[in-house]
Amino acid sequence: MFDRVLIANRGEVAVRIVHACTELDIDAVAVYSDADEEAKHVRVADEAYYLGGSQAKKSYLNQDALLDVARLADVDAVHPGYGFLAENQSFAANVEESEFAWIGPPSSVMADFGEKTSARTIMKQADVPIVPGTTEPIEAPGAVEAFGEEYGYPVAIKADGGGGGRGLKIVHKPSQTESKLQDAVREGEAYFDNPMVYLERFLENPRHIEVQVIGDGHGTVRHLGERDCTIQRRQQKLVEESPSPVLDEEVRDEICEAARRGVAEASYENVGTVEFLYEDGEYYFLEVNARIQVEHPITEVRTGIDLVKWQIRVAAGEKLSFSQDEVDPRGTAIEFRINAEDPDNDFTPLPGTLSTFRPPTGIGVRVETGVDQGDSIAPFYDSLFAKLIVTGEDRDEAIARGKRALEGFDIEGIPTTIPFHRTLLEDRGFLENEHTTTYVERELLDE
Amino acid sequence: MFDRVLIANRGEVAVRIVHACTELDIDAVAVYSDADEEAKHVRVADEAYYLGGSQAKKSYLNQDALLDVARLADVDAVHPGYGFLAENQSFAANVEESEFAWIGPPSSVMADFGEKTSARTIMKQADVPIVPGTTEPIEAPGAVEAFGEEYGYPVAIKADGGGGGRGLKIVHKPSQTESKLQDAVREGEAYFDNPMVYLERFLENPRHIEVQVIGDGHGTVRHLGERDCTIQRRQQKLVEESPSPVLDEEVRDEICEAARRGVAEASYENVGTVEFLYEDGEYYFLEVNARIQVEHPITEVRTGIDLVKWQIRVAAGEKLSFSQDEVDPRGTAIEFRINAEDPDNDFTPLPGTLSTFRPPTGIGVRVETGVDQGDSIAPFYDSLFAKLIVTGEDRDEAIARGKRALEGFDIEGIPTTIPFHRTLLEDRGFLENEHTTTYVERELLDE
Repeated sequence: MFDRVLIANRGEVAVRIVHACTELDIDAVAVYSDADEEAKHVRVADEAYYLGGSQAKKSYLNQDALLDVARLADVDAVHPGYGFLAENQSFAANVEESEFAWIGPPSSVMADFGEKTSARTIMKQADVPIVPGTTEPIEAPGAVEAFGEEYGYPVAIKADGGGGGRGLKIVHKPSQTESKLQDAVREGEAYFDNPMVYLERFLENPRHIEVQVIGDGHGTVRHLGERDCTIQRRQQKLVEESPSPVLDEEVRDEICEAARRGVAEASYENVGTVEFLYEDGEYYFLEVNARIQVEHPITEVRTGIDLVKWQIRVAAGEKLSFSQDEVDPRGTAIEFRINAEDPDNDFTPLPGTLSTFRPPTGIGVRVETGVDQGDSIAPFYDSLFAKLIVTGEDRDEAIARGKRALEGFDIEGIPTTIPFHRTLLEDRGFLENEHTTTYVERELLDE
Repeated sequence: MFDRVLIANRGEVAVRIVHACTELDIDAVAVYSDADEEAKHVRVADEAYYLGGSQAKKSYLNQDALLDVARLADVDAVHPGYGFLAENQSFAANVEESEFAWIGPPSSVMADFGEKTSARTIMKQADVPIVPGTTEPIEAPGAVEAFGEEYGYPVAIKADGGGGGRGLKIVHKPSQTESKLQDAVREGEAYFDNPMVYLERFLENPRHIEVQVIGDGHGTVRHLGERDCTIQRRQQKLVEESPSPVLDEEVRDEICEAARRGVAEASYENVGTVEFLYEDGEYYFLEVNARIQVEHPITEVRTGIDLVKWQIRVAAGEKLSFSQDEVDPRGTAIEFRINAEDPDNDFTPLPGTLSTFRPPTGIGVRVETGVDQGDSIAPFYDSLFAKLIVTGEDRDEAIARGKRALEGFDIEGIPTTIPFHRTLLEDRGFLENEHTTTYVERELLDE
């Protein structure tokens, strides 16, 4: 096992990784930008090193500075968390080629699954259902129109390197083709340095369902059940739950096994998430996220398996110790993302200082946080600063517990997404499980 | 289901019951003494009523005042928590005879199990092993000597109404008989208003193992697995874990089923704990605690079953919804009692104000607390003000998580038992599971 691990991240996920390291008796080495000099992830780590300026590209995206710290701190391995460089194939490759181990899916796995066209090809080989779409990048508007004639409108144009809604354009009729295609290519270039785009049939009322997988590099790949992340605003997940309340046992087993089979096809290593769209009993592979995800705790609390520790163990060469049958998710878990955003004002990020920060306690409550009372939220990074995860015997109990815990989550000084979550838990459509991925905008926020 | 419940208690257990009520959509009605006017259990309740002076007999033990509040607040039921009036048979009977429901084992159950000689008789009928002892109260020193000759020394003289070490005297040789018997009778009279004493063989190196049971009054009684509460100081539990690391599967099943069978013999209702002593593969019934216990959360986190909610449901007439096979405890859980006591100074209670109170967060961590930062601990009541419960896939992970969480539990302003717990988690005897009920005093504290 490693003695020292560099955590190439900040905020709640960096604190999460410190916890895993501490429990494995590994020294946790943090890094920080100017803005984060006194941040919680620095306070809880065993050591911390300065990276650079507050802007991410000067610090948490600064590959050279990170590798310098790794050498200076004499670590054994690098954990990238999620976001920043977590899915940067060249950074992963640079770490792999250095004397440090990479705690995450290897660059070869990212090459297989990081770009959507390659991932779709692998999934097709494993007989995993895929949304009808092109397996090769397209260039001319004519390809969009031909696709629309064959499969029907709307058609989604997606940037090959995209994600989180960026580089995604929806064509509802042929006349929109040219401008939407230009927009998608431009966004792909701007955000992901990749102008390639591909096409998919666009499902109008889907649920977002994803399956947690893990491979140990010794030939074993397991799934850990699914998550339902249908509560999104503008393609940004806000609330995730497990199990998905729309799946029956048969489809659940089928989709989980399809995910496992699909990534096993290319000898997947470390953790990953296989995302699907689900509509009317059918599910379609969407993409693989080759990293730990924000919503991983709802899988942990249902299975009793610590995913971040297993990331570290697998990277250190350990074999998975549990059989597929021993993965036995229990009850219902729901995660609420606590963002420094004003839900009454178009979810505008509003950084500031937490004059009060008192997380709820009690049965079935887990809190992950990158802050303590008195801390400031910097404007430079993602607005998520805490997560509330609740569990219950069933969905009704988890919802009741969520209400109780959200009411007991005392935060003052900045607006947060808590009022949105409290509204959601009173919403008939959510309670009766009628929501789809656009439900929040259409019905709950009237945007 | 009830609409309104009176919580006849204070501190962390009152907050725990508020949580259960809130999640069941029941109004939680709190009560408070002079010292508790601004206490957390008052702040989180839906309503709160004044009881009387700070001393317990003027407030939380004041039966008339409690029944007056119940009428004034127009509640449907009374939950006594643990301690105070929780096992007071006459108070339970008074509530039962009023218009309010009693949320706990009925007074008839207390009559069966509250006094040790009656409980032993029932357990004998159900073929539950019992420490050799008298089933009738004894009076003369000659009975002690006769018992010692038959079963060997040491002999325990126990007050019939006793518990927690009070009214317990150990006779190591015949010459001690007379003075020890007098002491036991005197303590029984002083603490429990009951001069009756009985005898038991005294086990010198036992483990304390107890089984959680619940009955619904419709003929169904289930067990929810065992807890190991061997880490005690002067008969006061400090740390509890589940499962017990000394039981193999066969003995575990046997002891849990014996406990269930024993209380089912007398149609047990609501929750209860059947305590055993265990030594060298043998287990002996000790007593039944006819109430929810301090350490109930370690059973909840392993089974996913909310015991306090089930107390309320059963009292409202609901049937248990789970079969014995569906009770499937998972992983290891450990509870650490956080007391306002100075472990470096003979565990002297030292009340004061919590200038800092920041509980740990993250995976596998549950906190129950009767305080928030800035609150004061009053000198009038039990020194326990918070509990840390950790879970892990196995005992090693739970211990590692306990170390991490105790290190992250920031409390300033008063001494607490946290340093004791941190010492315990580094102690070879505890880690290698060699401890018995007197281990803390003998080996860890050198008292």
